[in-house]
Amino acid sequence: MPRKNPAAREAQRVLVVAAHPDDPEYGCAATVAKWAAEGREVTYLLLTSGDKGSKDPRLRPGKLATLREREQRSAAALLGVQQVIFQRHPDGMLENTMALRREIAAVIRRCRPHLLLAIDPWRPYQTHPDHRAAGQAALDAAYAAKEINLFPEQLVDGIEPWRIREAWLFWSGNPDRWEDVGGFIGRRIAALKRHASQVGAEAKRLPTDVRARAREAAKKGNQAFEYAEAFKVLRW
Amino acid sequence: MPRKNPAAREAQRVLVVAAHPDDPEYGCAATVAKWAAEGREVTYLLLTSGDKGSKDPRLRPGKLATLREREQRSAAALLGVQQVIFQRHPDGMLENTMALRREIAAVIRRCRPHLLLAIDPWRPYQTHPDHRAAGQAALDAAYAAKEINLFPEQLVDGIEPWRIREAWLFWSGNPDRWEDVGGFIGRRIAALKRHASQVGAEAKRLPTDVRARAREAAKKGNQAFEYAEAFKVLRW
Amino acid sequence: MPRKNPAAREAQRVLVVAAHPDDPEYGCAATVAKWAAEGREVTYLLLTSGDKGSKDPRLRPGKLATLREREQRSAAALLGVQQVIFQRHPDGMLENTMALRREIAAVIRRCRPHLLLAIDPWRPYQTHPDHRAAGQAALDAAYAAKEINLFPEQLVDGIEPWRIREAWLFWSGNPDRWEDVGGFIGRRIAALKRHASQVGAEAKRLPTDVRARAREAAKKGNQAFEYAEAFKVLRW
Amino acid sequence: MPRKNPAAREAQRVLVVAAHPDDPEYGCAATVAKWAAEGREVTYLLLTSGDKGSKDPRLRPGKLATLREREQRSAAALLGVQQVIFQRHPDGMLENTMALRREIAAVIRRCRPHLLLAIDPWRPYQTHPDHRAAGQAALDAAYAAKEINLFPEQLVDGIEPWRIREAWLFWSGNPDRWEDVGGFIGRRIAALKRHASQVGAEAKRLPTDVRARAREAAKKGNQAFEYAEAFKVLRW
Amino acid sequence: MPRKNPAAREAQRVLVVAAHPDDPEYGCAATVAKWAAEGREVTYLLLTSGDKGSKDPRLRPGKLATLREREQRSAAALLGVQQVIFQRHPDGMLENTMALRREIAAVIRRCRPHLLLAIDPWRPYQTHPDHRAAGQAALDAAYAAKEINLFPEQLVDGIEPWRIREAWLFWSGNPDRWEDVGGFIGRRIAALKRHASQVGAEAKRLPTDVRARAREAAKKGNQAFEYAEAFKVLRW
Amino acid sequence: MPRKNPAAREAQRVLVVAAHPDDPEYGCAATVAKWAAEGREVTYLLLTSGDKGSKDPRLRPGKLATLREREQRSAAALLGVQQVIFQRHPDGMLENTMALRREIAAVIRRCRPHLLLAIDPWRPYQTHPDHRAAGQAALDAAYAAKEINLFPEQLVDGIEPWRIREAWLFWSGNPDRWEDVGGFIGRRIAALKRHASQVGAEAKRLPTDVRARAREAAKKGNQAFEYAEAFKVLRW
Repeated sequence: MPRKNPAAREAQRVLVVAAHPDDPEYGCAATVAKWAAEGREVTYLLLTSGDKGSKDPRLRPGKLATLREREQRSAAALLGVQQVIFQRHPDGMLENTMALRREIAAVIRRCRPHLLLAIDPWRPYQTHPDHRAAGQAALDAAYAAKEINLFPEQLVDGIEPWRIREAWLFWSGNPDRWEDVGGFIGRRIAALKRHASQVGAEAKRLPTDVRARAREAAKKGNQAFEYAEAFKVLRW
Repeated sequence: MPRKNPAAREAQRVLVVAAHPDDPEYGCAATVAKWAAEGREVTYLLLTSGDKGSKDPRLRPGKLATLREREQRSAAALLGVQQVIFQRHPDGMLENTMALRREIAAVIRRCRPHLLLAIDPWRPYQTHPDHRAAGQAALDAAYAAKEINLFPEQLVDGIEPWRIREAWLFWSGNPDRWEDVGGFIGRRIAALKRHASQVGAEAKRLPTDVRARAREAAKKGNQAFEYAEAFKVLRW
Repeated sequence: MPRKNPAAREAQRVLVVAAHPDDPEYGCAATVAKWAAEGREVTYLLLTSGDKGSKDPRLRPGKLATLREREQRSAAALLGVQQVIFQRHPDGMLENTMALRREIAAVIRRCRPHLLLAIDPWRPYQTHPDHRAAGQAALDAAYAAKEINLFPEQLVDGIEPWRIREAWLFWSGNPDRWEDVGGFIGRRIAALKRHASQVGAEAKRLPTDVRARAREAAKKGNQAFEYAEAFKVLRW
Repeated sequence: MPRKNPAAREAQRVLVVAAHPDDPEYGCAATVAKWAAEGREVTYLLLTSGDKGSKDPRLRPGKLATLREREQRSAAALLGVQQVIFQRHPDGMLENTMALRREIAAVIRRCRPHLLLAIDPWRPYQTHPDHRAAGQAALDAAYAAKEINLFPEQLVDGIEPWRIREAWLFWSGNPDRWEDVGGFIGRRIAALKRHASQVGAEAKRLPTDVRARAREAAKKGNQAFEYAEAFKVLRW
Repeated sequence: MPRKNPAAREAQRVLVVAAHPDDPEYGCAATVAKWAAEGREVTYLLLTSGDKGSKDPRLRPGKLATLREREQRSAAALLGVQQVIFQRHPDGMLENTMALRREIAAVIRRCRPHLLLAIDPWRPYQTHPDHRAAGQAALDAAYAAKEINLFPEQLVDGIEPWRIREAWLFWSGNPDRWEDVGGFIGRRIAALKRHASQVGAEAKRLPTDVRARAREAAKKGNQAFEYAEAFKVLRW
Repeated sequence: MPRKNPAAREAQRVLVVAAHPDDPEYGCAATVAKWAAEGREVTYLLLTSGDKGSKDPRLRPGKLATLREREQRSAAALLGVQQVIFQRHPDGMLENTMALRREIAAVIRRCRPHLLLAIDPWRPYQTHPDHRAAGQAALDAAYAAKEINLFPEQLVDGIEPWRIREAWLFWSGNPDRWEDVGGFIGRRIAALKRHASQVGAEAKRLPTDVRARAREAAKKGNQAFEYAEAFKVLRW
């Protein structure tokens, strides 16, 4: 595991915006673990608490959200994430509205991340409406957050516009960056297992599956290393 | 001034929902001061920070909001308010949407107030669109907050539905309750003066005007006491 | 009880639009029973199935809706209502949108009622947002239903614009019509009791309460008869 | 008829905002004629062109709108109105959205009226949804038009915020101003007749009806003069 | 033509969601005919009745919709479709709203299809806004229909969540499945001709054009058979 | 420079729809200059006036819009554009609503262009939300403008449906047409420099950059000529 790099810690704050608890773990957890280990300060912003994600008729949305927030906090802690923010929008009904962009922009202006990790909303055949909405809203909020004249009511008490330098999009159909996550695959698997309510019977297969997919990603990207997470990188 | 009443302190939490800094001071500040003095715990929820309320072209919305939040905090402190929450929606553009109700309901479920102070949205010829929207959204949020099946994604980690017992509506065209605010009129005037960016040249006339209106309110309500603030009271 | 009047049966169809199962019984059930007994054809249109109306955390929205639709069908049958239509919008979240008006207009154009019974949306301090929305949407739909150029996509296969002659608004703050419901109060009480999930412990007091309120309504309207239901009547 | 008053002409511009052609003539035409005769500059802003207002299945919306714009222009000319603006929103579907307010505010900032004539949206039992929406949007736009920070994208090329001094609301349930329109009733009747597609068979009765109603208005307002138009007046 | 296959009939229900009458015939009619012939139960859900699809100024939207519903029923009958449902939204104005998704989800939960046929909303340069909206809404509704906590107000009286196994998207820019429709091309042509109001002068060329395109589809997909309809297949 | 071609002038009107002043110059200005030189009549429709496009806290949105409209008019004049229309929606907040489509359709029906130049909304990773919204709204408006039954309230006083023949999309990820703009590159550079508030320090590099990109476009399109602007062309 890499040593903590004090320079990187100063320079690099990372914001992960996702729709549901477990999205970051399924999408970019090994990268998160690696960056946290390098001393970067990672914040999670979860737009919903996954309150609809169960087939069990006895599990009410609030109870499920309680459970899933705990699972998410536990997974995040294991990866070295410093802060987890829940906005508690209703799961399954996200839409890329001005109101949602405004909320995400407020977080960006407060956290001042250098880098955004978000879902790629352009992925063809991304059928989960929340994933499209969360990805698009995160990017549109990043656009707004840097403009002094957009959502100007937020620029209070020292809060200033903030320009994120790069967005790394996961679950992309069109990746152009492959992060070498050798050494952090185990951490990703462990973090995924913390989402016990979601992985369920799948837990057993997880180590094999996760490794296989990370190997395949590295191969598709023609990378020399064994395990990759793939991203589409945008710059502003 | 009444002595602190420890029983009341335990029993009574009050939430004031308003559209702009200075709305509570213009609407119900003497009552707030009186209740705070009795030991009630008062929270302010300001939906906007009044970022549009200036004619000065050099004063940007964010600067104005910074100023007005400070004025509001100062006025609230003077009245004995314990907490001031700003949601920083854009001034002048409030609408009673599900998204706004959801946010207010979340505050209600967290603060668990016994009593709501809000703007009367039914007042005929209430021409400020924010005042209509803020009043209606506060009441619709109070309705939702008590239902276990509404905004169920909020009922996380011990947060439960909460039923507010009474709403006292200020700026009502149809009051049916007059609060004796003798002894707290001076506090109201002082609190109003803290909103220096808004009262401006009006500051001088404030003591006379505020007293005159409170006397008139008491008289209209056929009350025996000298100074009143008038309310329409609703119960759930 | 009046004899069936074949002429009235031909001439008079009545549509009751309400937000939740039990709204018609709390609002105008004795009048419905009387009119049905006179041979009028009464249809109920319920915009929601009351799926949020319980404090019981084990009762899921769908189960509750199932229960309440049954209660509503049973109450309606007892009153002589011929048809009950459920649109199953989510309880507690009604808004007077074009989409909702369109749906109600479609029912109006199909059922061709001479008379509309709906909630008075102008009642000051009507705090239930669904009641305001349901009343306003019903009236706005009645407006649209009569226009050949509004929602013209509905005028298919013999469906024509339809002008409702009168709207009778219940739960009004401003009634101008008092219907003599002597002889039908018992039916109203019985119908209310069918909503067992809602009246609960209140069931015992119902007979006394309902009679008292109907007596008071008659008295307020300066009517010679004993029991009244009060309405605000609009004409187009 | 009063002589032209050059001072009034300089001082007074009037904006009439209405939902459909013929609304101004049914609501305030004699007052408009009187003010125009006094030298005031009157502008009409019609939010729709009344394209749905016919029962004739052969008359397409566009043809009807063409006809009604001509009728409106003709009636306005007869009353001395200087300018008629049509925004051509779809008749029957007006909603008080931010987009509609923005459009009306742009007209206000360009025309700089001292006085607004609009429909009273608070009139209880105003069942035409367009009338409620048009009245409320006009007032909310007047509020916005005066604020330097609202719709700031409109303040281009010398366009400045503009504060309307008074709004006179017609079709009010609560009038407090009665304009003496003796000498202008004939003009109102003539203007109404220009709306031939709308008054139809009613044309014959118009003179009697209009006079009767104007007499009744004067009487209800306890005015000494014979004919009145009634208004609720608001000031900012 | 294949023999009826009783096993398939039991196992396979198919729902076709489209924006306008004739969309299914232009998109997937030979496949529909083939599957119906195999004993599958096919339902059509038409979001609009194509009420705007004419250049003839004398043909009102309602008349046109009447005509096109008949054409659609006739075409569907010829293909062996068992049920045709019309939702009668206004043609040309479809938007993928929660309200539209809710309606489609209700149909899915009632019809319980194993397979969905819908328009590919990701096709680049799909310029018909209704086609994008209809395709996306169908897929988002399919997502929601399987979740016990989404639109829970619909789960009434035995209606349960329903998971569609596969979506076959027609008019795709990215097909990965080619259905051998040899033997059913004639049926497709005949069904298209039933849309007389739409194919008009094009009718003569239809047989040649349809065969040419089906041949081209088979060729592009490198299929051994002569005629294909092409699909992008998604699984949940 | 080509001679004026009177035939082309008669046949060809061009409408450019863009989100902000300078979008046309960055996207298709050399083509515009060439076509204008050939005698085509070019109209610019700017949805916003770019009122948010500055980092300077002293520059209010209205002042900035004033400046940018002037820059845009100056650039357009230099290119030979005949008319520039500003709709003054708020910069940074464009959404493809029915209201926006309606406004653009009204312009199309009035200007009757044969050809539309607009932003490609399907370009993957087009992160500016205004660019996606402006492109999509322009195309959806073009669809609506040709339909006699869509926005029929606009077909007033001789205004008829209008079918644009072709849309040329700039900033496309998928171009299929390369316009030879040799001889007009200098004009494009000059026009860009008119947007002084935007190009700023970049002005110096502009000539080199613009030429380099135009050369690269021609090369990517395998064109024999030196400088190209690339487009995706759609036909209705």
